Amino acid sequence: MSGTLYGVGVGPGDPDLMTLKAHRLISNAQVVAYPAPDSGTSFARSIAADAIAPDAVEIPMIVPMRVERFPAQDVYATGAATIAEHLDAGRDVVVLCEGDPFFYGSFMYLFARLSERFATEIVPGVSSLAACSAALARPLTARNDVLTVLPGPLGDEAMRERIANAEAIAIMKVGRHLPRLRALLDDMGLTERAGYVERASLAAQVVLPLADAPEAAPYFSMILIYKGDDPWLNQ
Amino acid sequence: MSGTLYGVGVGPGDPDLMTLKAHRLISNAQVVAYPAPDSGTSFARSIAADAIAPDAVEIPMIVPMRVERFPAQDVYATGAATIAEHLDAGRDVVVLCEGDPFFYGSFMYLFARLSERFATEIVPGVSSLAACSAALARPLTARNDVLTVLPGPLGDEAMRERIANAEAIAIMKVGRHLPRLRALLDDMGLTERAGYVERASLAAQVVLPLADAPEAAPYFSMILIYKGDDPWLNQ
Repeated sequence: MSGTLYGVGVGPGDPDLMTLKAHRLISNAQVVAYPAPDSGTSFARSIAADAIAPDAVEIPMIVPMRVERFPAQDVYATGAATIAEHLDAGRDVVVLCEGDPFFYGSFMYLFARLSERFATEIVPGVSSLAACSAALARPLTARNDVLTVLPGPLGDEAMRERIANAEAIAIMKVGRHLPRLRALLDDMGLTERAGYVERASLAAQVVLPLADAPEAAPYFSMILIYKGDDPWLNQ
Repeated sequence: MSGTLYGVGVGPGDPDLMTLKAHRLISNAQVVAYPAPDSGTSFARSIAADAIAPDAVEIPMIVPMRVERFPAQDVYATGAATIAEHLDAGRDVVVLCEGDPFFYGSFMYLFARLSERFATEIVPGVSSLAACSAALARPLTARNDVLTVLPGPLGDEAMRERIANAEAIAIMKVGRHLPRLRALLDDMGLTERAGYVERASLAAQVVLPLADAPEAAPYFSMILIYKGDDPWLNQ
């Protein structure tokens, strides 16, 4: 009998936002895999650290941060091969995924390589989107709103059009795009309706009106915009 | 000292998908509030049922299901007043929210009425969106995709345009709109790229290609569409 591959969402950062299921699977895991940078610690592992058994086999998949073409697919190919050996030997493997495994997650690269050969289960997690709206203390979407999630690198013209056609907008992966996005939102008259969050749910969390956001944003930062009319009031 | 108002996401349905934080807050709560239908049981309460202390005070907010204009705001006004009495008396109140409190949630109606007067904390939860993509065993979004979340009742013209301008699309609150949506997606040539999920993460979960979806869909059903080119393969 082969083992089962678990893609486990560990949530946005606060270990307390792991699900009961994620916590139990991680605690019982003999083999745990996760992406890691070439220097520093793995964010996904740091969230789950207290739950990982001391004698668990760990498979860090080192993704070089300097490579522009993210992700480096050979890392995932090698990681998948190592994971497959454990699964073939009948051991379950838990892959730790920041946020939710299928929401802009790198788990898909393992999933693509392994899910046809092995039993696979996805354990959904709390996304950074939910953590950011909680941090801003502001509903993300209401009633029959259209919500659009945009990647920071999207070009100005497409960005404008998508923003114009939604009531609620989240811009992910803000990072170095912050000055450009700020100018664009200012030009659209939306600055007052925009909130900025970095490292949601962590001790280092920063929550600010977009107008007060710092010049340099980390990769894990988000802008939330609500264009509707106080939808959660007076209805 | 007044109590604290907690808006607690209990996740999509499987009690195991509650967060550690949600579970602890609910287990320790002296006062628990939740929306409930006028007949049958509260979905939010049913998810958290095993965690609620036997001697907790419960505040069901009965939302009539027959009222077209949902939500009935007097229900939330009355609920908010009852909750405020407990908060004024120094007792914390935990409000149970299906999925995530700020993702199309009715918690916003209590939040609007109480968050300026009382300390309020939002505990994000796993959304139905994450649960549906997990159930379909298919990534929701990849790399720099645009994701758009659409409410089922949205008109055909707007629906077409929003679908055309995103790589990943989720249509929520499908319910009685299923035949219309199916015809529309068929006309756009997207049926083969669309999956249908109802009651994600529950024992009664149904997962089907859209082409095989039943004629009558429940309110808690979703269509997920991916228009990109196998983004999780061969990259």
